[in-house]
Amino acid sequence: MSGPSLWVPPPTVLQQPLAVPDRLLLGPGPSNVPPRILAAGGRQLISHVHKEMFQIMDEIKLGIQYAFQTQNPLTLAISGSGHCAMEAALMNTVERGDVVLVAVNGIWGERAADISERLGADVQQMVKSPGEYFTLKDIEQGLAQHKPVVLFITHGESSSGVLQPLDGIGELCHRYGCLLLVDSVASLGGAPVFMDQQEIDILYSGSQKVLNVPPGTAPISFSETARKKSLNRKTKPPSFYLDLGWLANYWGCDGKPRMYHHTAPVNNFFSLREGLAILAEQGLENSWKLHKENCLYLHEGLQKLGLKLFVKEEAARLPTVTTIVVPEGYDWKEITEFLMNKYAIEITGGLGPSVGKVLRIGLMGYNSTKFNINRVLHALKDALQHCHKSKI
Amino acid sequence: MSGPSLWVPPPTVLQQPLAVPDRLLLGPGPSNVPPRILAAGGRQLISHVHKEMFQIMDEIKLGIQYAFQTQNPLTLAISGSGHCAMEAALMNTVERGDVVLVAVNGIWGERAADISERLGADVQQMVKSPGEYFTLKDIEQGLAQHKPVVLFITHGESSSGVLQPLDGIGELCHRYGCLLLVDSVASLGGAPVFMDQQEIDILYSGSQKVLNVPPGTAPISFSETARKKSLNRKTKPPSFYLDLGWLANYWGCDGKPRMYHHTAPVNNFFSLREGLAILAEQGLENSWKLHKENCLYLHEGLQKLGLKLFVKEEAARLPTVTTIVVPEGYDWKEITEFLMNKYAIEITGGLGPSVGKVLRIGLMGYNSTKFNINRVLHALKDALQHCHKSKI
Repeated sequence: MSGPSLWVPPPTVLQQPLAVPDRLLLGPGPSNVPPRILAAGGRQLISHVHKEMFQIMDEIKLGIQYAFQTQNPLTLAISGSGHCAMEAALMNTVERGDVVLVAVNGIWGERAADISERLGADVQQMVKSPGEYFTLKDIEQGLAQHKPVVLFITHGESSSGVLQPLDGIGELCHRYGCLLLVDSVASLGGAPVFMDQQEIDILYSGSQKVLNVPPGTAPISFSETARKKSLNRKTKPPSFYLDLGWLANYWGCDGKPRMYHHTAPVNNFFSLREGLAILAEQGLENSWKLHKENCLYLHEGLQKLGLKLFVKEEAARLPTVTTIVVPEGYDWKEITEFLMNKYAIEITGGLGPSVGKVLRIGLMGYNSTKFNINRVLHALKDALQHCHKSKI
Repeated sequence: MSGPSLWVPPPTVLQQPLAVPDRLLLGPGPSNVPPRILAAGGRQLISHVHKEMFQIMDEIKLGIQYAFQTQNPLTLAISGSGHCAMEAALMNTVERGDVVLVAVNGIWGERAADISERLGADVQQMVKSPGEYFTLKDIEQGLAQHKPVVLFITHGESSSGVLQPLDGIGELCHRYGCLLLVDSVASLGGAPVFMDQQEIDILYSGSQKVLNVPPGTAPISFSETARKKSLNRKTKPPSFYLDLGWLANYWGCDGKPRMYHHTAPVNNFFSLREGLAILAEQGLENSWKLHKENCLYLHEGLQKLGLKLFVKEEAARLPTVTTIVVPEGYDWKEITEFLMNKYAIEITGGLGPSVGKVLRIGLMGYNSTKFNINRVLHALKDALQHCHKSKI
């Protein structure tokens, strides 16, 4: 045994048991995980390159194709969060000097612009206030003016509660020779998206929203055009971990024998497989309907409490995350803390450009029930009575 | 409900239950996960920004500081595999044109060189055959010749079974104004490493080896010199997900209020916390001793079967992964398949430059027991009798 002797002692806090409180997670995600998915994630491992793992990955691929409504062979899950999938999309398609047009109406557009800048892209932004969405006219103007190689837009803007209409954008992009990249992290399974028919070139989501899978994996799919653009780059993408050529091979998307790329998060894949299986059993249309109905039920209840919805146009309200105008005279932080401390219910304030403006309630998958809505409405009513209007 | 109607039907295979066979994982990782860690990973979620989560992350930080034997405040876990940590290390320290010197004696050096090239570095390699390690003389020659800003070296070369001696390398690097970056994915907890006393600037590991935690997180730590170099770059690192400034804030390492960065893999953090707690309870010195003893017991058994160890020098044998010369006349693949099919035991062939040359047996943490060694020796004896020597 070479080297010096130990000088950092074992930390005493690790002698205490792991402490995880019970919470009803009605924020913008992660959402609570149903027992079937927790059980899958708690199973003993196999290796990331066993044939049974490849089978499970194939099943995940089919599940994502269903959830995305696509037949793209290049469909897989990134071994990271939704942000990691955003990077995978941009790192594989964008090269230095490429024009990237970003539709910014909340934090996700801001982040996509940040990442594109890091990649040396010529980043152009179309900016709207949080709560607004982009019309086809806005988008066509941006495409005509900037001639980008990629347009980034967010389907479910969870920081503002906006659902971006997607019909027609893909067609426009393709008329201008541009790839359409859509973030559906907060909307997938909660609002309709049809990757192929809406001509979306790259679509990604996260595991921890409507799918109710623990965070750590992110479904993504590339159209044939996006695949060609990504795999025929002049330069290698800056990340090996997210290199689409390697990922495509590891996920069995390129028809060649699968090779070791990285050690995939095996248990997260077990959970993701179960989350997708539950969505397939329920059916996409039923899931969309459920989220829509429950969201309307929540909205009615909120309005009865005298609260105002942040997104004015009803059709533009995201069914998975509801944004509420912070009621006049109240400190939003006192309200979220009241719910957490008295009821162990998580709702949150805004994020990025919506901080201080909104309260956010998420109803996603397993968590989207009338029972939970009644619980949060009851707690909110209590909060409005007991929080101090005088504080600000 | 806007948009077209469903055209990709729910996949029938997702109506079948999730199928995960039981395996004894004696490959180079992932290793089997003990019940306490599986249970932690199967617990209900809290949010990635709840204060109880920050507490768990603080505990992880302390656990990593103990495992690494460091007092670096900038210590955290990457939300990805060991490869993702390798990228985090390189992406945050290396800028375009920087000279990176990579010690290549197996696949991990090859990968570090690949990643450095993607980052626009001037990559210089010192190459040794798999099974060999680098002497201080080799390293000083490389430093003097190339004047790199970073030297990458692998502590536990799991593709060849080599344990790289680390004493003195940090001192040499610092004499030449170079950062020392060490990959301890396969060695941490199995062989001594003293980050501070050995003057290692960046050290990272993986969760799925000796820690017996499911893959998906990767401990990493930065010395004060590495921290300064990373946070005073001229350009932002190409990844936002792995940006050290953001990660340092989210992990509470910069003394500022913690902000949302990405949605961390909450359950993987629960598991990682438990893996580190088990290591702290056992004690590093006991863990090193256990791996050393069991590895010697395995080596004796292998030699009794007439098998030859791939790494000639005894002190250079990695205690966690043993490499065996593929016995003359046998097809390595037939042997690994025999063990898998008849005994549900995973051992593997080589990887990268060691493919076709070796068989690999991993004994890591919970899996490093005499009972498991007897099982694999029994299975190997059977394989040597029943596999066809005539095949090749």
